[in-house]
Amino acid sequence: MSRKPKNCGLDVAVASNLNATIQLAHDCGYNFVCVPLAHPMLRRDMKTRDVDAVKGRWVRTDLVLGASEWQYRVVPRLSPWLNLDSPNEAFRKNSEEIFLQELQFAHHLGIRGIVMDLHQRHNPNLAQCLNKRLHTETSTYLREEIWLQIPTSSRATNSYRNDVIETDDESEEDTWHWWNDVRLMCQSHARLMVVLELTADLPEEGLLDRWHGEPIELLIVPTSIFLTNKGGFPTLSKAHQRFVMKCALRNTAVLVSGANRHGSLKHYIQYIRNLYQKAEVPPSRQHDAGFEDTLQMPLQPLADHLESFTYEVFEKDPVKYSEYGNAVYKALLDRVPESEAATATQVIMVVGAGRGPLVTQSILAAKEAKRNVRIYAVEKNPNAVQTLLDLKKEDWGEIVTVVHTDMRKWNAPEKCDILVSELLGSFGDNELSPECLDGAQVFLKDDGISIPSSYRSFIQPMMSMKYYNEARNLKLNHHHPTGNFEQTYVVALGSSYMIAPVQQLFEFVHPNKSPAIDNSRYKSLKFTAQEDSTMYGFTGYFDTTLYKDVRLSIVPETFSVGMFSWFPVYIPIQEPIYVRKGEIIEVVFWRRHDEKRVWYEWCITNPRISGIHNVNGRSSAMNL
Amino acid sequence: MSRKPKNCGLDVAVASNLNATIQLAHDCGYNFVCVPLAHPMLRRDMKTRDVDAVKGRWVRTDLVLGASEWQYRVVPRLSPWLNLDSPNEAFRKNSEEIFLQELQFAHHLGIRGIVMDLHQRHNPNLAQCLNKRLHTETSTYLREEIWLQIPTSSRATNSYRNDVIETDDESEEDTWHWWNDVRLMCQSHARLMVVLELTADLPEEGLLDRWHGEPIELLIVPTSIFLTNKGGFPTLSKAHQRFVMKCALRNTAVLVSGANRHGSLKHYIQYIRNLYQKAEVPPSRQHDAGFEDTLQMPLQPLADHLESFTYEVFEKDPVKYSEYGNAVYKALLDRVPESEAATATQVIMVVGAGRGPLVTQSILAAKEAKRNVRIYAVEKNPNAVQTLLDLKKEDWGEIVTVVHTDMRKWNAPEKCDILVSELLGSFGDNELSPECLDGAQVFLKDDGISIPSSYRSFIQPMMSMKYYNEARNLKLNHHHPTGNFEQTYVVALGSSYMIAPVQQLFEFVHPNKSPAIDNSRYKSLKFTAQEDSTMYGFTGYFDTTLYKDVRLSIVPETFSVGMFSWFPVYIPIQEPIYVRKGEIIEVVFWRRHDEKRVWYEWCITNPRISGIHNVNGRSSAMNL
Repeated sequence: MSRKPKNCGLDVAVASNLNATIQLAHDCGYNFVCVPLAHPMLRRDMKTRDVDAVKGRWVRTDLVLGASEWQYRVVPRLSPWLNLDSPNEAFRKNSEEIFLQELQFAHHLGIRGIVMDLHQRHNPNLAQCLNKRLHTETSTYLREEIWLQIPTSSRATNSYRNDVIETDDESEEDTWHWWNDVRLMCQSHARLMVVLELTADLPEEGLLDRWHGEPIELLIVPTSIFLTNKGGFPTLSKAHQRFVMKCALRNTAVLVSGANRHGSLKHYIQYIRNLYQKAEVPPSRQHDAGFEDTLQMPLQPLADHLESFTYEVFEKDPVKYSEYGNAVYKALLDRVPESEAATATQVIMVVGAGRGPLVTQSILAAKEAKRNVRIYAVEKNPNAVQTLLDLKKEDWGEIVTVVHTDMRKWNAPEKCDILVSELLGSFGDNELSPECLDGAQVFLKDDGISIPSSYRSFIQPMMSMKYYNEARNLKLNHHHPTGNFEQTYVVALGSSYMIAPVQQLFEFVHPNKSPAIDNSRYKSLKFTAQEDSTMYGFTGYFDTTLYKDVRLSIVPETFSVGMFSWFPVYIPIQEPIYVRKGEIIEVVFWRRHDEKRVWYEWCITNPRISGIHNVNGRSSAMNL
Repeated sequence: MSRKPKNCGLDVAVASNLNATIQLAHDCGYNFVCVPLAHPMLRRDMKTRDVDAVKGRWVRTDLVLGASEWQYRVVPRLSPWLNLDSPNEAFRKNSEEIFLQELQFAHHLGIRGIVMDLHQRHNPNLAQCLNKRLHTETSTYLREEIWLQIPTSSRATNSYRNDVIETDDESEEDTWHWWNDVRLMCQSHARLMVVLELTADLPEEGLLDRWHGEPIELLIVPTSIFLTNKGGFPTLSKAHQRFVMKCALRNTAVLVSGANRHGSLKHYIQYIRNLYQKAEVPPSRQHDAGFEDTLQMPLQPLADHLESFTYEVFEKDPVKYSEYGNAVYKALLDRVPESEAATATQVIMVVGAGRGPLVTQSILAAKEAKRNVRIYAVEKNPNAVQTLLDLKKEDWGEIVTVVHTDMRKWNAPEKCDILVSELLGSFGDNELSPECLDGAQVFLKDDGISIPSSYRSFIQPMMSMKYYNEARNLKLNHHHPTGNFEQTYVVALGSSYMIAPVQQLFEFVHPNKSPAIDNSRYKSLKFTAQEDSTMYGFTGYFDTTLYKDVRLSIVPETFSVGMFSWFPVYIPIQEPIYVRKGEIIEVVFWRRHDEKRVWYEWCITNPRISGIHNVNGRSSAMNL
């Protein structure tokens, strides 16, 4: 899958003739330009502190471009000297007025988004004015985004950024806070995004990586940070390359800014395009293409019948079923010594057989192991049973018995040696595998084997303003006002930053020999924040031991390479929680049930206490 | 106004015969008893750790009392040995079951509330189970409260509390956290309340006072903390007395617990009743009786006409009008020297004259000062104008001219020397005094005087779970889902704790000589938290300088004793914010306007960032 920037733009400090500038950029391979909204000849100067600057003519006519060109070829910039938090009251008020005037004009032009430079961390009044714009309800469908430009480092080493106040190295600031403070004051508004400006000096990698949890709309690569290779062409340092290639995984749009220092401006964007293509996708994300960052509802295969399409997609997994076959093979060898191979027959029950892939795998495993088997294929979905009956007739033959029933209610004619099932969800037990297998294990022999023999869920705290907003803005039918934050979502992870390493949450073992089986769970975990960050929830994973050393995992560190059956889950929290580096994030998770339903509840207890989410399963539950 | 406990109860460890116990308590002056819900003879013991304790008979029959006696004469207690956060899993699960069983039975009895002892700070699983109960929707109207018993000190010096684990003095804990953690996990649920148990050792006064911001349902006074006076009667230490007398200001219900050590149990409650009567009400609260803790909507006298009833109430203020008279008197003396007293005539305009109290005061002041005046009484409310015309005819005579108009639109026949108005709200400018007086000052002479000449608003961060819940549960017509937290309320302060001293917010001066009048405001303030506490918003006050040293104030420190025209305001925040002692609470307030409306926005920026409240005045605004 080829990676390329969604868009490539050229940042132009002065564009007296906008059409010519767009044409020039286009000739060099850029499909849009970023220019100051105020016309350079009409630009109001901050030094005059002209309180009447708001009056009179200050902008080029909108007739210079057609509406769709304004939308797709131009990203305007607000006047860089605006300071809505200036201690000088007159200047602050003038900035406010011009800020609103420019935003209104940008809206008039119908642009997608407007870039605004941040220069400092202290921006409450800017946030107030941003809110005013973000929350204004217009009758038109156009709702421009506001893209805040933040440098990766507060050291003004980019020569072209002469508007940035020079600071000592000693007062180096973590510029992520400039963004974080504003967006929290704007309640993480979905139309507020980041324009990340690469600086020559980069902060350490951990701090840089944190930006991947933010909604980066544009990555600015200044020409001044390029080095020159032997051929005279521009190239980036290793550290810059690494970061750009990580951005490539999300096809982040790029904006090249600054003077041409390498013959032609086209060399810069060509180089970046090359980097994007070289970017390597980690194993756990190789099958995400087309699904990244899209929240999906988890399946409820116990309550709802899956459709043919769903079966077909999952049956194609190249890893999952071969590992199941592998597990059955090893179990058969363990249960039947070579000497009894000819005489003994193992009874295998595939519970939740679906359209039969585990039956097929079991037959193949038995052949490979040279052991005799008799197989029951138990399935509750009447539509899938039709497929099973076909397969029995066409392929499997008499060794397979197809049974149409709910495994929890089946009155089996005999007990089995091996109970095979694939009832696991992205969060392990979240498709009710424990409850189903507790029901099915009554027809497993005392020394029988369950495949899987155990599974575990995992969580880690994460930052993703994007997922938070996706969850917030979905139209769902929750009774409770914050219901959207009280359910889990399945998502191929793109725009996210993991605040602390993964930890194990719940574990289930089968068969369950406990005298009083209880699948409720209650666990508290402590994570340590690796950097200052804002937590928007958790990602959840699972792994499973099918049999002995045969395992499947979607935990990134132990990912089963090539497997695509499961994406991780996103578990939101209602209010984002800011955490400092080194701070303990303490969380509590419950798995609760009543007669009809099973659900999770969760709560943060440190660094500050959230309310308990999904009380009584009020917003989400798995139906038994 | 006499203060007395809402209810007086007797805490009884064992009540084999409930009717006899109630009778005994009644004979001693107690109108209810607090008893264990589980019958003592049937009590399940924690030491046996009996996982089957939940089965079988454990409670006395409900037939022993009538339904209304259960409701008014009995407060049951949950079994004190329950520990829903025990590290022992079996014991924890058993506690959970019995907890729910007992709560369900309490609900069956139709009691108002049930007492549960807390023993420790770590209670996430209890919070989860409490939520389960608090959020269960029943078809009946009975919704019992859950009253968590917390000792004022973690030292188990109350001999009768033998269930408390003994701790070293060194591990003294701030028990407020036991409560605070649970209630935050339960999202400050309105049916979760405090039973505060006085201990022999009391924490310092600052920590004790914090409890006044919590919903204290019952104050437990153990007999063991009483001293014996010369007459052999029970008495409390000065520190205990002080605290009990503060509780008296809210008529907190009292529960006496422990063995009779002073002849008769009636002596204890008599002593406490006496203390309640002796409690002194601070000046700023002397007129609160009957209004405490009830949130009211602020008036909008500019947009709506006040009713006769409202005028009548406010006209009775014994302080406000005499101070206005005083101010007019001093202004007249300053403007007209003795030598001109016979010849000069001062023009006074009373703008917003209402039913005329300021006109009357001005006439009295002129007589007192022996100066000639001509008075215009300007009023927009046509109904009040009728009263003014009556008063002119009956009392005032020709020196008063009644004008029916909006002061902002009046075309005055001459300019005045003194412009008198009473347009101030509880938060100073919140009834649009600045905008009204800016309009009216065109007919004030260049050297003329405005009474008031200035006013200032004040705020302080506060804790009051009660106000937060009142605000949350009011049925208002807000478009925005969190609109109830985006408006101000007027409230006579009772159940509240001030986290830091008052600071000044905005100031307005009249006449406003600025060339470009701008009544928008933007200010950031820093407060220092005096104790660990949970902030639920702000209280707001104002003061005003009528003329020179003539002032009115509802700021507690400078309160105009006897004045009752204004209660403070409560300004909520959407999410409670926990703050640590010594931490800086940084807040930003804006006063914003457009052509039709004026509104406030507010935001916390430290210790953590809240979203900005009331963006664009979406939930509340004053109509121009």
